[in-house]
Amino acid sequence: MATPTSTAPHAVRSPHTLGALAERFGLGLRGDPATPVTGVATLARAAAGQLAFLANPRYRAELMATGAEAVVLREEDAGECPVACLVARDPYSAFARIAALFDPTPAPRAGVHPSAVVAADARVDPAAEIGPFVSIGARSVIEAGAVVGPGCVIGEDCTVGADSRLVARVTLVTRVRLGARVLVHPGAVLGADGFGLAMEQGRWLKVPQLGGVVVGDDCEIGANTTIDRGALDDTVLGEDVRLDNQIQIAHNVVIGAHSALAGCSAVAGSAKIGRYCLIGGSAGVLGHLELADRVTITAMSLVTHSIREPGEYSSGTPIQDNRSWRRNAARFKHLDTLARRINAATKDPT
Amino acid sequence: MATPTSTAPHAVRSPHTLGALAERFGLGLRGDPATPVTGVATLARAAAGQLAFLANPRYRAELMATGAEAVVLREEDAGECPVACLVARDPYSAFARIAALFDPTPAPRAGVHPSAVVAADARVDPAAEIGPFVSIGARSVIEAGAVVGPGCVIGEDCTVGADSRLVARVTLVTRVRLGARVLVHPGAVLGADGFGLAMEQGRWLKVPQLGGVVVGDDCEIGANTTIDRGALDDTVLGEDVRLDNQIQIAHNVVIGAHSALAGCSAVAGSAKIGRYCLIGGSAGVLGHLELADRVTITAMSLVTHSIREPGEYSSGTPIQDNRSWRRNAARFKHLDTLARRINAATKDPT
Amino acid sequence: MATPTSTAPHAVRSPHTLGALAERFGLGLRGDPATPVTGVATLARAAAGQLAFLANPRYRAELMATGAEAVVLREEDAGECPVACLVARDPYSAFARIAALFDPTPAPRAGVHPSAVVAADARVDPAAEIGPFVSIGARSVIEAGAVVGPGCVIGEDCTVGADSRLVARVTLVTRVRLGARVLVHPGAVLGADGFGLAMEQGRWLKVPQLGGVVVGDDCEIGANTTIDRGALDDTVLGEDVRLDNQIQIAHNVVIGAHSALAGCSAVAGSAKIGRYCLIGGSAGVLGHLELADRVTITAMSLVTHSIREPGEYSSGTPIQDNRSWRRNAARFKHLDTLARRINAATKDPT
Repeated sequence: MATPTSTAPHAVRSPHTLGALAERFGLGLRGDPATPVTGVATLARAAAGQLAFLANPRYRAELMATGAEAVVLREEDAGECPVACLVARDPYSAFARIAALFDPTPAPRAGVHPSAVVAADARVDPAAEIGPFVSIGARSVIEAGAVVGPGCVIGEDCTVGADSRLVARVTLVTRVRLGARVLVHPGAVLGADGFGLAMEQGRWLKVPQLGGVVVGDDCEIGANTTIDRGALDDTVLGEDVRLDNQIQIAHNVVIGAHSALAGCSAVAGSAKIGRYCLIGGSAGVLGHLELADRVTITAMSLVTHSIREPGEYSSGTPIQDNRSWRRNAARFKHLDTLARRINAATKDPT
Repeated sequence: MATPTSTAPHAVRSPHTLGALAERFGLGLRGDPATPVTGVATLARAAAGQLAFLANPRYRAELMATGAEAVVLREEDAGECPVACLVARDPYSAFARIAALFDPTPAPRAGVHPSAVVAADARVDPAAEIGPFVSIGARSVIEAGAVVGPGCVIGEDCTVGADSRLVARVTLVTRVRLGARVLVHPGAVLGADGFGLAMEQGRWLKVPQLGGVVVGDDCEIGANTTIDRGALDDTVLGEDVRLDNQIQIAHNVVIGAHSALAGCSAVAGSAKIGRYCLIGGSAGVLGHLELADRVTITAMSLVTHSIREPGEYSSGTPIQDNRSWRRNAARFKHLDTLARRINAATKDPT
Repeated sequence: MATPTSTAPHAVRSPHTLGALAERFGLGLRGDPATPVTGVATLARAAAGQLAFLANPRYRAELMATGAEAVVLREEDAGECPVACLVARDPYSAFARIAALFDPTPAPRAGVHPSAVVAADARVDPAAEIGPFVSIGARSVIEAGAVVGPGCVIGEDCTVGADSRLVARVTLVTRVRLGARVLVHPGAVLGADGFGLAMEQGRWLKVPQLGGVVVGDDCEIGANTTIDRGALDDTVLGEDVRLDNQIQIAHNVVIGAHSALAGCSAVAGSAKIGRYCLIGGSAGVLGHLELADRVTITAMSLVTHSIREPGEYSSGTPIQDNRSWRRNAARFKHLDTLARRINAATKDPT
């Protein structure tokens, strides 16, 4: 019989003090270094023992009323802080590092669950964790420290790099190579057939998808995101690429290092996205296009031509009450005619 | 050897008569109360013994030609009905209640499938059904009457409330609490990491996601829908919230009771949606916004600012033949210039 | 101990020569018929022994520099080809057929994995392959040559037709009938409840979903795509329909033969799409609409009314730098007023 255990992630896991945190992360400290920190929380909800943070100025009002034991904040906000504080140049990053100390995600438990089905010629490092109901296909390799969670399916000729984590129910179909420290959330499917079809005498002919998927170190792949394998060459994610949930990456797409895509965005076949790009939620990029480095696409915009210059790009119309929108949208249908009339009236020749 | 069984859900499961249905659901009856009803169908397809319904006036022509044994309809349509009828104030609701009698979904079969892997300190009610290939993590609780279907993964510190049903292959990652009578369809992922990142010296730093997900009573979560857990506080769905398939709910979103979201819609982090809201298919709501109660967003609209008043809101442009659309879209790129020229010509100062 | 095996799909699997390929697929040949072909690759990457293809004229420059052993191309490009060539009327189709010879996807291995859970009254053909962790429900039928990959869940009253392949982790919920040679990618969910709700006294009432899903021969269903079952009648895909990843098909939708839908598109309830339609990525079709045969919808367009004529249709606005877009979008909000002013100024009465 298990003894009752606190399930709250904010509860004490190990003894941390303000002084130890300040030293470990190179932060300034105003307050008693011996003060214990038992967890983290928002300014609005933090209670005694808990650490909060202030990064966005619009939460400054909450600072005044906080019940936190201490707050991570910038030098310029320290004066107004009613409780102890840890002073950081970048409070959000500092807080993220401290919060990681309180993350209850269990460390890998080396070993293969007895229910797992592993091909004879697959190679699983003894320091990897393979969960229940996992199947691993021929010639696949699971490296040291990797976690393959419950219900994952690893097909043939795949690699899960060292310290990577497939949380649960992830599928690597075939020829998928993950680098080190890659995190893949449940339901993600990597390496399914690209959508390659030729029309032949009135019927679709399937084009075999013989490439693979290569995912660089430190990438994160969201829940139910899909990354198809290439037709001949591979689909490629550079290092430190971050994909949110329900993203669709088609075959032969290449995404440069450190780019981040928000939920429900989609990139069509053979598009090439640069480094440090930011793609907003539900945005789309058509096939065979190229985006330069440091291009930002706002939510639900559709990229229909290559973008050569860094910067922010958008499409769409603003949201309005439906009645106003209907009137304006009806006019859009005749915008060219309208423009011609204006041009005629104002003698513009275009 | 099993005896042959009819697989049609429309076939007799238990004996119902028009009279018994009228009494049970408080409906008027025109026809012989002893008439047996063996199933339900559309007006166009119903045959002898089957019950159909008329709610939308545009199907009135089908009423005339129906082969149904009887029809559920409004008082004002009863006169035209060529067959027996059950008279209801709301025929669609009445029909839904009757149709439920013919739903062949099996009742829960209490017990844990021998293949399931249940943590020693998880608690499964004896009146719950746990299917094959299910794994249940530490400290999780499955209440009475709940069904956890084949291939589901329940992580640590989760609760599946009484009479809830996880159809199959559902993942509750960690700290997910479902209320009573929650229905979750296959492929849904609740409680995955929110997409929290900080940029630090040219690399992404992951922000730990220490919150959970709370889902109220009577919610429904569609196939392959994803609901991330909160960063510090929880992501929250009020009671009776209805999510269609492939919806993305980001961390710390709050959705008020009785709201319904259609397929492929997406709500970004920390947005707060009111009660009785309706979000159309493929629509989006940006992060940190608030929607008042009873706001309707039409399909594929993007909400870019908070909405304080109930009502219907839209963005986008109407669909046209591609040739016309191209001409109009090209003009949109210069709409501001066009407007300035008009204003100059008509002496408007804005 | 397994002997080292090449994992490259482009490597020799069986001996093919240019002459044999030309004869088998009815192609012209310029070069030595005895030349062996060991794999396929792109013009840019192909090496000795490998076959490439040229279909799109914009890759003609790559033809000059190719390291391929031989190239599949059109008669008019043969003169410029620096290496041997196979001449085809449609080089892309011809290449697809040749590439299939080098596809390492294993053939079905007849038999039921010992971990699979199969209902007593389900019927699995001895020539079908059932993978690990598969569950098959009451009265379901798996026909000869079909593959049900790891982690699939087949509910009650389903059929998987001859030579169909469910790659892995596919769910057929209930009353789903797949024809012959249907290919379903991981994470797809067919036959979940349609999103049927009635509002009754301030609460949602679920409308039972008693129909099924019927999928014609030779269809392909992408990863994480969802197809709901019908409310009373079935949801229907005609033969040779091709769905990319993350598509949402709502209840009672009917899609005509040979139509293809790109990733993340969505079709709402009871919409009827014709034959040979092409729906672009992230596009949407509202409920109860009809699309004629041979209608093309461009990416991220929303179909808001039925379309009776074949042709290409679009909505949305072009992408621009954010600054320009903001100015134009602001004007859109007043487009009707603007139009009225123009009309007044130019004496147009509308």
